[in-house]
Amino acid sequence: MSSEAETPKAGHAPIVISVDAMGGDRGPAPVIAGIAQSAKKNPDIRFILHGDADELKRLAAKRLNARHLDGRCEFRDASGVVKMDDKPSQVMRRGQDTSMWSALESVRNKEATVAVSCGNTGALMALSMVRLRKLPGVNRPAIAVLWPSRNPQNFNVMLDVGADIRADAEDLLQYALMGASYARNGLALTRPRVGLLNVGTEEHKGRAEMQAAHALMESASGNANFEFVGFVEGGDIPGDRCDVIVTDGFTGNVALKTGEGTAKLIGDLLREAFKYSPLSRFASVLALTSLRRLQKRIDPRRVNGGVFLGLNGTVVKSHGSADATGISAAVKLAFRLAQSGFSDRLAERVASAAEQAHDMTDTTGPATDAAPRDGTNA
Amino acid sequence: MSSEAETPKAGHAPIVISVDAMGGDRGPAPVIAGIAQSAKKNPDIRFILHGDADELKRLAAKRLNARHLDGRCEFRDASGVVKMDDKPSQVMRRGQDTSMWSALESVRNKEATVAVSCGNTGALMALSMVRLRKLPGVNRPAIAVLWPSRNPQNFNVMLDVGADIRADAEDLLQYALMGASYARNGLALTRPRVGLLNVGTEEHKGRAEMQAAHALMESASGNANFEFVGFVEGGDIPGDRCDVIVTDGFTGNVALKTGEGTAKLIGDLLREAFKYSPLSRFASVLALTSLRRLQKRIDPRRVNGGVFLGLNGTVVKSHGSADATGISAAVKLAFRLAQSGFSDRLAERVASAAEQAHDMTDTTGPATDAAPRDGTNA
Repeated sequence: MSSEAETPKAGHAPIVISVDAMGGDRGPAPVIAGIAQSAKKNPDIRFILHGDADELKRLAAKRLNARHLDGRCEFRDASGVVKMDDKPSQVMRRGQDTSMWSALESVRNKEATVAVSCGNTGALMALSMVRLRKLPGVNRPAIAVLWPSRNPQNFNVMLDVGADIRADAEDLLQYALMGASYARNGLALTRPRVGLLNVGTEEHKGRAEMQAAHALMESASGNANFEFVGFVEGGDIPGDRCDVIVTDGFTGNVALKTGEGTAKLIGDLLREAFKYSPLSRFASVLALTSLRRLQKRIDPRRVNGGVFLGLNGTVVKSHGSADATGISAAVKLAFRLAQSGFSDRLAERVASAAEQAHDMTDTTGPATDAAPRDGTNA
Repeated sequence: MSSEAETPKAGHAPIVISVDAMGGDRGPAPVIAGIAQSAKKNPDIRFILHGDADELKRLAAKRLNARHLDGRCEFRDASGVVKMDDKPSQVMRRGQDTSMWSALESVRNKEATVAVSCGNTGALMALSMVRLRKLPGVNRPAIAVLWPSRNPQNFNVMLDVGADIRADAEDLLQYALMGASYARNGLALTRPRVGLLNVGTEEHKGRAEMQAAHALMESASGNANFEFVGFVEGGDIPGDRCDVIVTDGFTGNVALKTGEGTAKLIGDLLREAFKYSPLSRFASVLALTSLRRLQKRIDPRRVNGGVFLGLNGTVVKSHGSADATGISAAVKLAFRLAQSGFSDRLAERVASAAEQAHDMTDTTGPATDAAPRDGTNA
């Protein structure tokens, strides 16, 4: 990422990010603070901010580092706000005046490459589906998250974590393609290792759709430029056996929340343990740097952002309660994906796989265009 | 639990526990060490040990605290050992000579109330099904585990964590009944709160069988003496919203292993953080008591033991790699369940619920025997 002193180079067009500034639990203040942080670090970003324009301008002006936002924000007035408990169906019918709708509109009409929102996940997914529409060849879009792991890149990609509660074998294959593409562009892995989440690693275990998905992913892995490691288990999600974990949105959502809850419980108990006696309080002061190092390594704010995959355009869903650091992390992720041309690469990859699958059903031998493609990094 | 000095009282018959001494990853040595620990703490336990009798006798004799085992162990020679990668179907057909088979046989013929094994889970479940048979009214037995939580009792019960990968609404109801019974007898909770694991807490969310199970559990809760708190999420597994979490064996297995893996990753990173510099190493020495306190609170060895529910007899599955402390924890759990008459209480509870369900379909009004029963604590 460029340093503060750099100015955008010629031919290095700034990336425009569309931001829903209103829908989070904490209102627009942390959103403005977060984008100001990002703007300070990265001169190549510009923003379109959606929400109560007067309030947003006021908040932007009073930031300590307001000068970094100068001339780099456009404001789009939207009076409505999608609330956390609004039903997706209602928002789809009557949400035209909301900041969320407006933020997606900027991606739809190509003013921005990617949208960021910390609003209601269900409504954001439903709106994204109808306004951006699914990519050709994608049946079910998915939400992918980064998960702290033992891998050199410190994170794994897991999907789907809740876009849909069902997934058949074909859907799981598409998740593998989309997750691998995300790992290439978001984690800079050339040939990500993909695992299919199951209850045992032996091939005879698990539900019937798992067997079918296993076969599909195995035969797709060569052309789609990922390594298929087969079935993996829950313990591999924070492990180092693979980089991308594929599962249905029901299982993925339970796993995500179980992992987050367990980490939070341990953190709270650790704090309690250090408060126990004067000696342990003293020890905790000495241990502060070590504990901060650990916290930084697994801080959920630093990997803030579920990415909606399989749409015409990229949407980053930040945590509803994200603070400035969390918002800034979501913006950084959005920038990186936009800069790598992720949306187009993903679309190309899915279309190519669909075409190959089509060819495979037409002929008994391998399809003629099934050779690995060079030069793409989708 | 009685102190070491106490002798069994009259009318306080010792509990006999049948132990498969051979099937774990570490062989019989930690098993003998573990039961010796238990025997030292609790004079009311007796053991039937299954495996290579000569080796077991030799190991028992050389224990430092061997005198605690004196006259309290019976040895049953079984030459075969079920290996960790043996297929359940093979063990069912040709496992008659194994220590696992022999250990279940002691429960089957009522010599012991409960069996403990650290062997191959799949084989143990399959053998338990054919040798002990399912309780009348139970369609799918389940494996229940204790999970560190924010509740006053420090643990929640979760089931099923992998006995079966499928569960329909009726099965989930039975899991609720069995899990509540386990919480009453294993955690001493009078009226456990039961939650149904789902992806959202609103009632319109989730798969169709979830809606059906929700309705069944709601209407059963009054007579079955548990409080139904409705849908819960992954974050509630280590939380304090309920005491029993009900889910299918696929989701439960993934959640269990994700939680364990996440906890292990954090533990390892914490150790790494403390090794970083001389100062942090010094801090870790001071913090040792605090860290040990935390470790004790969430040490998986101290809640070692998945319990098979829904069979004629209780089977406790210890971790395959359990050490003496782990084995002793599994024995303690087995003792507590045997002492409370858990198997009989559970059987009664399930039979009563099945009867009520039958009566409900016969009449439109409430069944005549549907009033809460006093004096039972199943």
